[in-house]
Amino acid sequence: MLGLMQEWPLLCHKLIDNAERQHGVREIVSRSIEGPIVRTTYADIHRRSLKVAQRLERDGYGLGDRIATLAWNTARHLEAWYGIMGVGAIYHTLNPRLFPEQIVWIMNHAEDKAVFVDLTFIPLLEKIAGAVKSLKKVIVLADKAHMPQTTLPNAVAYEEWLDEVDGDFAWKTFDEGTAAGMCYTSGTTGDPKGVVYSHRSNVLHAMIAAMPDAMGLSSRDTVLPVVPMFHANAWGLGQSGPMVGAKLVMPGCKMDGASIYELLDTEKVTFSAAVPTVWMMLLQYLEETGKKLPYLNKVVIGGSSCPRAIMSKFQDNYDVQVIHAWGMTEMSPLGTLCTLKPEYAGLQGEARLDVKQKQGYPPFGVEMKVTDDENNPQPWDGKTFGRLKVRGPAVARAYYGGAGAEQFDADGWFDTGDVAHIDAGGYMQITDRAKDVIKSGGEWISTIDLENLAVGHPDVAEAAAIGVHHSKWGERPLLVVVAKPGKEPTKADILGFMDGKVAKWWMPDDVAFVGEIPHTATGKIQKTTLRQQFRDYRLPTD
Amino acid sequence: MLGLMQEWPLLCHKLIDNAERQHGVREIVSRSIEGPIVRTTYADIHRRSLKVAQRLERDGYGLGDRIATLAWNTARHLEAWYGIMGVGAIYHTLNPRLFPEQIVWIMNHAEDKAVFVDLTFIPLLEKIAGAVKSLKKVIVLADKAHMPQTTLPNAVAYEEWLDEVDGDFAWKTFDEGTAAGMCYTSGTTGDPKGVVYSHRSNVLHAMIAAMPDAMGLSSRDTVLPVVPMFHANAWGLGQSGPMVGAKLVMPGCKMDGASIYELLDTEKVTFSAAVPTVWMMLLQYLEETGKKLPYLNKVVIGGSSCPRAIMSKFQDNYDVQVIHAWGMTEMSPLGTLCTLKPEYAGLQGEARLDVKQKQGYPPFGVEMKVTDDENNPQPWDGKTFGRLKVRGPAVARAYYGGAGAEQFDADGWFDTGDVAHIDAGGYMQITDRAKDVIKSGGEWISTIDLENLAVGHPDVAEAAAIGVHHSKWGERPLLVVVAKPGKEPTKADILGFMDGKVAKWWMPDDVAFVGEIPHTATGKIQKTTLRQQFRDYRLPTD
Repeated sequence: MLGLMQEWPLLCHKLIDNAERQHGVREIVSRSIEGPIVRTTYADIHRRSLKVAQRLERDGYGLGDRIATLAWNTARHLEAWYGIMGVGAIYHTLNPRLFPEQIVWIMNHAEDKAVFVDLTFIPLLEKIAGAVKSLKKVIVLADKAHMPQTTLPNAVAYEEWLDEVDGDFAWKTFDEGTAAGMCYTSGTTGDPKGVVYSHRSNVLHAMIAAMPDAMGLSSRDTVLPVVPMFHANAWGLGQSGPMVGAKLVMPGCKMDGASIYELLDTEKVTFSAAVPTVWMMLLQYLEETGKKLPYLNKVVIGGSSCPRAIMSKFQDNYDVQVIHAWGMTEMSPLGTLCTLKPEYAGLQGEARLDVKQKQGYPPFGVEMKVTDDENNPQPWDGKTFGRLKVRGPAVARAYYGGAGAEQFDADGWFDTGDVAHIDAGGYMQITDRAKDVIKSGGEWISTIDLENLAVGHPDVAEAAAIGVHHSKWGERPLLVVVAKPGKEPTKADILGFMDGKVAKWWMPDDVAFVGEIPHTATGKIQKTTLRQQFRDYRLPTD
Repeated sequence: MLGLMQEWPLLCHKLIDNAERQHGVREIVSRSIEGPIVRTTYADIHRRSLKVAQRLERDGYGLGDRIATLAWNTARHLEAWYGIMGVGAIYHTLNPRLFPEQIVWIMNHAEDKAVFVDLTFIPLLEKIAGAVKSLKKVIVLADKAHMPQTTLPNAVAYEEWLDEVDGDFAWKTFDEGTAAGMCYTSGTTGDPKGVVYSHRSNVLHAMIAAMPDAMGLSSRDTVLPVVPMFHANAWGLGQSGPMVGAKLVMPGCKMDGASIYELLDTEKVTFSAAVPTVWMMLLQYLEETGKKLPYLNKVVIGGSSCPRAIMSKFQDNYDVQVIHAWGMTEMSPLGTLCTLKPEYAGLQGEARLDVKQKQGYPPFGVEMKVTDDENNPQPWDGKTFGRLKVRGPAVARAYYGGAGAEQFDADGWFDTGDVAHIDAGGYMQITDRAKDVIKSGGEWISTIDLENLAVGHPDVAEAAAIGVHHSKWGERPLLVVVAKPGKEPTKADILGFMDGKVAKWWMPDDVAFVGEIPHTATGKIQKTTLRQQFRDYRLPTD
């Protein structure tokens, strides 16, 4: 027997419809690429996104077409998203920080037919557009006056293109399982893999994200999404913000401490979200200038593990609540958030930071487990680590084109490729990437733990732990170290410093000093390259 | 093109699974029907609801079977809900405040096969069980020691019945559109009509309800649902509470001021929800005893319009935030909540109450409009009233068996039967029931406005405005008045008092004094009876 409740498919345009109807006056403030601060409202965004949809349809785009965006966080980027989704097409955010050849590969794989591009990225696009065969149209996010000279074929100024329609348009309707968005994840190995979000997953993710124990977003919030829309959907803020009717402040291309502070202050931002690097720059700016954060209540920090110092500074010096979070492009992206359950709500100081340092627990709508290599669930004891697997309505079930099928199992669990443990309170902590973990005699050694420990040595600038072949144990840890300028620590110095702070059998068998550790375009340590580099390394213990 | 996101149907058992996994230690405190306070946890509820499902299956119940509950808010009632839903059956909450013959009618219409019943309602059930042909089993929510002598056939003690299985059971899985619950709405006219909730609608409703601008529920909340589970799903708290992992305090059968205060105080309740009558009793108790509410942050008040005095007392004397809300059984039930948009957040005192007095605005997931009789949308000007229509994933699309089909239109809008206006800020205010509104010369007159005005006269105990036949205008208002004991106001007194406070053409054409105004079982004015009574009334103006 079926329930007798309405068919009301979870479609993304309902988010912006609701914003217009209930929160039409609320401001969207953008630092434009041209320079000035631009003020619009949800009513404007709604009206203009309808025009985007109508205009795209006139150009022949519709259901299932991939339309790329190569743009910063601005109102125009947001209305482009809703216009693209509203005509049934798929917004495909491109990460401009990738290598040009990667972007070409991704656009060809997705068969992008058109691209909305910010002025900033015209030179980049000019270099690569010729190599993307499917690309028929370039919409430059500018008005006619700011339209640059360009070699790009079929390039139009967004405002001019938009003015050719009147906005008298009704959103297309379709099943909620229809694709709405796309984002490629670029690992440190192999080709990028495409994640395809559905309207349903985007809407459910927005609801999950806005919950009090997740981000806790309200119409009274002023939200500054520093995390780019091309970085895993700006963690859903482009959807959850309009859903709750929060004022949005879009930072455009300026993410330095002074620029972010200016927006936080003049717009009275209450909520923001960014990677640790951004917060590091802001905190440095605040320390240099002695400025304060009287309006900011809460920051979500994710993308990579948040250093304890950032958390304590926000908490102690600026009375800002930090929420450590973890997610993945494949998860829309929210996985866990470290808000406090009542058992921990009374903790103060270091004890509070001990909990907040973890990546947190999943909200309703995300299930997680850690397993060993044979898929046996591991105990939630805060020690036993294993492969972190997740499940939920906003988690990928496959990659576009079928790559990486081994990451998805028959019960719907997605293997995140992360290694983690979960404590008795349900809080998860990432300890490693699965491919980086060192397997010594069948037991796992966390490279992140070794690295965090090693960089605590005053003479160490950076450290990476990798597994190196060992005839008896299979693999044993080698610590690769970059010394601070002018410092010359020895192997004995470093191992002596680490001794007693980690299990005996976790201790690196050797330390190798190098001038530089290789990094990916997004700043992560390129362990594959490092392992390649040390492939023939002979450990002194072997 | 479809999104490549996981199939993860929105099933109610996932709410209690999440509660168990992430909030297993959190307490559920019940005032038991036997008397003592009983403490369980989400882990207990989860374990025991699995046993309910397993036990029901052993008794032969499964997909689509209607299983009634005739019970107060307790942990047992909650675990019965999850057990029933978890085996694919449908919990059907019966309202014990209805007339016995109505309950019989409803149970026969739903073809309930079994019933979970509290000790309180054994005498009631004994009276009616014989008339319900489908009923095969009675599960008395008690242990063996408290099992009463009863004439009920096939009656078993819940605890004994439950002990016959071990809980080694896996929830049944099915499409999220599958029916999960059922509740009949009893209007003032006609037969009761059955609303059939789906798993999807229950889960989405729980998410909608927990949002910061709706109820704003967190794992750090302690929630006291005074509103009964048989009254429109306890406004969803039996689902949203477990979803966020809030501590629940279940009041059992005691709703008087002293009993509610005791729970608020000893359990440090932060959030509660009830109809105005309950709050009136609590406030009276607090005034008599001089007690305070140091823990309570927020109360949701709905079911009927909340008197301004209740709001101002909570706000001014006890520093408790009041959220006025409106909903219907057909809406799962949330429709609107009166939380403050940023434009109003700074208001204080009377200006704040002027906004909070309205029924509020719908959260994302509920759409609303007001229309005239020809279905033309009316302006949002805070004056123009019309029929209130709603749409959303937790709004009914039909009644069980097809009754009342005229309330649902082809575009999915449900005609609530309420008359309301919406202001420019999006806030809705109920002005009447559609069938009570007086149509004078094609224009609508709100009877609620007239009544609220009339009861402001110091000598008036109760007033009801009804439309009476008029040869020129079709209908004109007659005001029916019950005077306060010992008072004898005249027609001139009352009309003089009202004069100038309402549009000239809204003024009643006559005042009729009566000893009593008829009420329904749930305390509403029975206008049908009243109109019947004054059917042949001749207005002096005609």
